[in-house]
Amino acid sequence: MVSSALSKLVIIGVGLIGGSFALALRRTGLVGRVVGIGRSPENMQRALELGIIDEQTDNFSAALSGADFVLLAIPVKQTASVMQQMAPCLEDHTIVSDAGSTKQNVIQAARSNLGKHIERFIPAHPIAGTEFSGAEAAFPELFQNKPVILTPLQENNQQAIDRVTALWQHCGANVSLMQAEQHDQILAAISHLPHMLAFSLMRHIHTLSQTLDQGLVPTPGGGGPMAVLQLAGTSLNDMTRIAASSPEMWRDICLENRAALLAQIEAYQQELSALQQMLANHDGESLQKLFSAARATRQEWTAFRNKS
Amino acid sequence: MVSSALSKLVIIGVGLIGGSFALALRRTGLVGRVVGIGRSPENMQRALELGIIDEQTDNFSAALSGADFVLLAIPVKQTASVMQQMAPCLEDHTIVSDAGSTKQNVIQAARSNLGKHIERFIPAHPIAGTEFSGAEAAFPELFQNKPVILTPLQENNQQAIDRVTALWQHCGANVSLMQAEQHDQILAAISHLPHMLAFSLMRHIHTLSQTLDQGLVPTPGGGGPMAVLQLAGTSLNDMTRIAASSPEMWRDICLENRAALLAQIEAYQQELSALQQMLANHDGESLQKLFSAARATRQEWTAFRNKS
Repeated sequence: MVSSALSKLVIIGVGLIGGSFALALRRTGLVGRVVGIGRSPENMQRALELGIIDEQTDNFSAALSGADFVLLAIPVKQTASVMQQMAPCLEDHTIVSDAGSTKQNVIQAARSNLGKHIERFIPAHPIAGTEFSGAEAAFPELFQNKPVILTPLQENNQQAIDRVTALWQHCGANVSLMQAEQHDQILAAISHLPHMLAFSLMRHIHTLSQTLDQGLVPTPGGGGPMAVLQLAGTSLNDMTRIAASSPEMWRDICLENRAALLAQIEAYQQELSALQQMLANHDGESLQKLFSAARATRQEWTAFRNKS
Repeated sequence: MVSSALSKLVIIGVGLIGGSFALALRRTGLVGRVVGIGRSPENMQRALELGIIDEQTDNFSAALSGADFVLLAIPVKQTASVMQQMAPCLEDHTIVSDAGSTKQNVIQAARSNLGKHIERFIPAHPIAGTEFSGAEAAFPELFQNKPVILTPLQENNQQAIDRVTALWQHCGANVSLMQAEQHDQILAAISHLPHMLAFSLMRHIHTLSQTLDQGLVPTPGGGGPMAVLQLAGTSLNDMTRIAASSPEMWRDICLENRAALLAQIEAYQQELSALQQMLANHDGESLQKLFSAARATRQEWTAFRNKS
């Protein structure tokens, strides 16, 4: 593991992710001074009180002067404007990384705003979180055994890649490297697509309930979707839990990772259409084969998690 | 509530459902003698030991002679052949009902096998169960506050419908009446479709994992789907739990409720395509509206369950 000592660490956005990163590195004793930049004075004050940062400022040139490492832990949509403010103040040796949940759009923002500093900008995505947010929610163990994906650029300096890798390993994370396109595709598949399926299923049940004669299914709550949902069991419950997720957040994720998500929805629809065709053909043998293969993957995953 | 006293109750298939029905009615003191018919001698012996039935036989005419009520609690695929054996032995006053999870096919079997006795055959579906099976698994509270759907026929005698309704109410169930077609459509939507979506999602992730350069995602377990799944969180986990369900059982359910399930898959595909179109059009406003509506239905359902 390459040396990771940092005399000055700058965290832009001292929330759950940025704050936990600072706390995790502080615990290793590798970090000298931690400077925070953030929009909410209350949150920055709390970050100081909690000992997450040593100093807070809204002056980029003061913050970035002499900085070894800068972590952007902000909503992805703000990346471009923050990079624009950072660029003129960045020193040649400073390494910059981020924690954005989509990568191709962050890279685009970096290429159009960081100029020569792109060489030391290493795109990253820690796949960790809780339902809480803000500096208050930060804790040093957040990244223990959690995946962190780096999506290095051909412009990147190898030593910078190694240092970012080492820093996340010091936080206890399991670091994987892949291409940004692959990252966005995988996240679209394992997280964004499932949310779209859950939202659509809840809408489908709602639509269906309006086509049925509710008089036949009286409910304490009257007709409507409850007339149908009162008959549902655990399978529909599990399949729609995440349909209660934040509409604003998911609108943004959809638009940020639009191309990859579209590709996943299309591929999923082909998978579902294949099943539909087997059913149309009364092809019980193919259906059973498909169900068995799906069950095998699911059971392999469960076993894999129990091992690791 | 109409009187429900039964001097002789016959249970065909003394498993979790049939056994629990007998135990629940016995507890009300409304039942005289309970006779069981079943394929497995061991299970029937256990049913006797557990006091679920008073007598077991494989002779239909002996079992059905003087019977007030007969419950068929057998795999749906066996319905036709069992009804064929029952028909010649049924007395005019005997009421027959079933517990099949699909109804249009059971009704077809009844119409082609029960002759004039169709008048007193009331199709029913108790939506209750556990992961266990057999007489050993039966318990009298199984149907407490669980939905039971009756799908009466125009041939049915109203008094017979009332008696079946009353018997299930004595078991603690919430009885709804609807058309068989509507029942099959609703079950296809709230149970069968979600299973198809989960199986397809697990298959999709498996397919995707083979199109990616696994070298970039090293895993303890090597490449393959685990390379992708190791990066997944709770959303994919919830959305694929039921993909571990029995392939044989789901093959049969698909074929038994084929038409209704096909209609549900098609309607769901349209719902998903609408979302896909909004995404293709960068239409964030419509996406947010869709997600908000889905969340509202999901939250209404959660509140409804907490009330009832």
